[in-house]
Amino acid sequence: MQEKTLMLPGPTPVPPRVLRAMGTPMINHRGVDFSTLFTEVEAGLKDVFQTNNDLVILPAAGSGGMESAVVNLLSPGDKALFAVMGVFGQRFVDIATGYRVEPLVVEAPWGEAVKPEQIQEKLAADKDHEIKAVFVTHNETSTGVTLDLERVTQVVQEHPAILVVDAVSSLGAIDLKTDAWGIDVVVTGSQKALMVPPGLALVSVSQRAWEVVRENGCCSYYWNWEAYRKLTEKKQTPYTPAVTLWFALREALTMIREEGLKQIFERHALMAEMVRTGARALGLDLLAGDAVASNTITAVRSPAGINVKDLRRCLEAVYGVVVAGGQKKLAGEVFRIGHLGYVFPNDIINVLNALDLCLLDLGHDHEAGAAVKAAGEVLKRRGKEK
Amino acid sequence: MQEKTLMLPGPTPVPPRVLRAMGTPMINHRGVDFSTLFTEVEAGLKDVFQTNNDLVILPAAGSGGMESAVVNLLSPGDKALFAVMGVFGQRFVDIATGYRVEPLVVEAPWGEAVKPEQIQEKLAADKDHEIKAVFVTHNETSTGVTLDLERVTQVVQEHPAILVVDAVSSLGAIDLKTDAWGIDVVVTGSQKALMVPPGLALVSVSQRAWEVVRENGCCSYYWNWEAYRKLTEKKQTPYTPAVTLWFALREALTMIREEGLKQIFERHALMAEMVRTGARALGLDLLAGDAVASNTITAVRSPAGINVKDLRRCLEAVYGVVVAGGQKKLAGEVFRIGHLGYVFPNDIINVLNALDLCLLDLGHDHEAGAAVKAAGEVLKRRGKEK
Repeated sequence: MQEKTLMLPGPTPVPPRVLRAMGTPMINHRGVDFSTLFTEVEAGLKDVFQTNNDLVILPAAGSGGMESAVVNLLSPGDKALFAVMGVFGQRFVDIATGYRVEPLVVEAPWGEAVKPEQIQEKLAADKDHEIKAVFVTHNETSTGVTLDLERVTQVVQEHPAILVVDAVSSLGAIDLKTDAWGIDVVVTGSQKALMVPPGLALVSVSQRAWEVVRENGCCSYYWNWEAYRKLTEKKQTPYTPAVTLWFALREALTMIREEGLKQIFERHALMAEMVRTGARALGLDLLAGDAVASNTITAVRSPAGINVKDLRRCLEAVYGVVVAGGQKKLAGEVFRIGHLGYVFPNDIINVLNALDLCLLDLGHDHEAGAAVKAAGEVLKRRGKEK
Repeated sequence: MQEKTLMLPGPTPVPPRVLRAMGTPMINHRGVDFSTLFTEVEAGLKDVFQTNNDLVILPAAGSGGMESAVVNLLSPGDKALFAVMGVFGQRFVDIATGYRVEPLVVEAPWGEAVKPEQIQEKLAADKDHEIKAVFVTHNETSTGVTLDLERVTQVVQEHPAILVVDAVSSLGAIDLKTDAWGIDVVVTGSQKALMVPPGLALVSVSQRAWEVVRENGCCSYYWNWEAYRKLTEKKQTPYTPAVTLWFALREALTMIREEGLKQIFERHALMAEMVRTGARALGLDLLAGDAVASNTITAVRSPAGINVKDLRRCLEAVYGVVVAGGQKKLAGEVFRIGHLGYVFPNDIINVLNALDLCLLDLGHDHEAGAAVKAAGEVLKRRGKEK
């Protein structure tokens, strides 16, 4: 059977070393074995988050981490500002609205990035400092667009609001300096650049954010960050942790340390350039412009007359390559190639080769082999620069 | 190194077959491989839940499943009745109180079971049917006490309230007939009798419960059962599922089918009897009386003069046997032996042997070998009855 090459925005491929780590027999989550595991995971994660802030590690999907940020930082009736540039930016608004927070929204057309100035303007207009928090998406998974987060942190610092960053599809693949940039809350999930199966939401919380959490008084038992903070000293969690995924995370963090964060960021930048160059060599249009293009996910417009479903079916059935379709209003318009986590330049070559051949099969007009050739040149040039 | 024998109320030992299943490479949670997995897990779980009701499988700890029941069924200001006989019954009250539900509570002293008549009385007094739901714990993990759930379902059926059962430490080990007994909502976790690592909360929802959910209108994005129901037909979940734990669950459900539910219930009853008989042969007192004693967890009073911590340390350090301490007001008073999931009579013999030897070491006065001898007789008698 064709081994599948998972090129999704997530879940991403799990390295064999990490799969094997999950074969570890179960341990007592109230005993010393778990405390040791906690300590090791915590140290490795702080390196990846580039932070000394406290971490909260929840047994939940990434959306659970997002919901936990809303309920810990805000109360019904509070005002918050949301920067929306796709499905996941909108998700923060939906979570907050369900919780009866009053959302102010700045938007970018899908495929573009919210401009830091849009946020700056809204905050400047908020003379009475009613906006309690600003929620942004570092890397919008639905469009493959990356926010200029460093600049956003600068404009938010002119206002007392807490900054909350959804870094689900960026952390560990695209540079995010939690402490150097002064980010209060960063939320991510295990199943993206961290190379671990889905099931853990990971959140970093600054001292300033803890103060807001305490004033706010969380209504939820399960999402209560304070309950986590209290047990962090004992290296335990308030409810039963997803121990197996912690085993996986420990091994993945070891791999990240071995490769080095800087090298990992460079690998992702290289893979993004290969995908973009290769797709363009086939005459394909990319949703995001170069200035805002993501290093982890590339959304490619399906050429006129070619059905995204047919293309994805060909990629998977014939070449074992799994890519994602478009979400919501981009359904049928784009397909999305995930290139994050345990993915390497050779995988990109395979994806581009499959794309080339499937498109030819579906009647698209381009020079056969053009994508691999163009991406190969990127790879060769980068190799020589080293 | 001494291999550890995990005799906790949870997480329970994960069978090697289940550990191996987690080595399966990652799949697309929006593709056909996951739909197949979903279909197989759903069918196996319905057998264990003894239900045709819909299932909601959340990436969360058991407490998350409990919180999801509160927020889906109730709104702030609603009244609900809670039967509390230990830490986990109280947890339901705490979750609901945080959510501004008005709790009515019936209680039993820790170590005893709430009587169905206590519930009946409160419901009979509620002439205006203000009580929207009744929350009970089938098996109280903190005390090792089992509720007479069948009788409770009968008294609750005299009132329109929805019945919610925390079956975290019972389902799959102690008989629970969801449909035959007419239980609206059953909540469990992956890490107990289901023999899977922690990280999945599993909930069954009756038609009557769905009507309440729809009227209620859930405020939470993450816990929203309706979002799960809508995707059940497509055999998908709204947010990224904890795929690896689904692989584990599929394998564990196969093992459960192979052994047979009836045989599994009998095994747990046998192990409980062995533990109780063995402990008594050492002159130890059991927290729960025989009439309400749990088949999955036994809380044993620490003899006068013997420190629970010293005893647990000896059991783990010398014999590799891991048992739990007491929770909250039982801390220092009892230790708890978990005998559920992937645990067999030979494990019980080892625990009792270790207990015997540690107690002798700590100065307790009893006939050496008495526990194993007494439990061995139980095992032999049961074997002959077959």
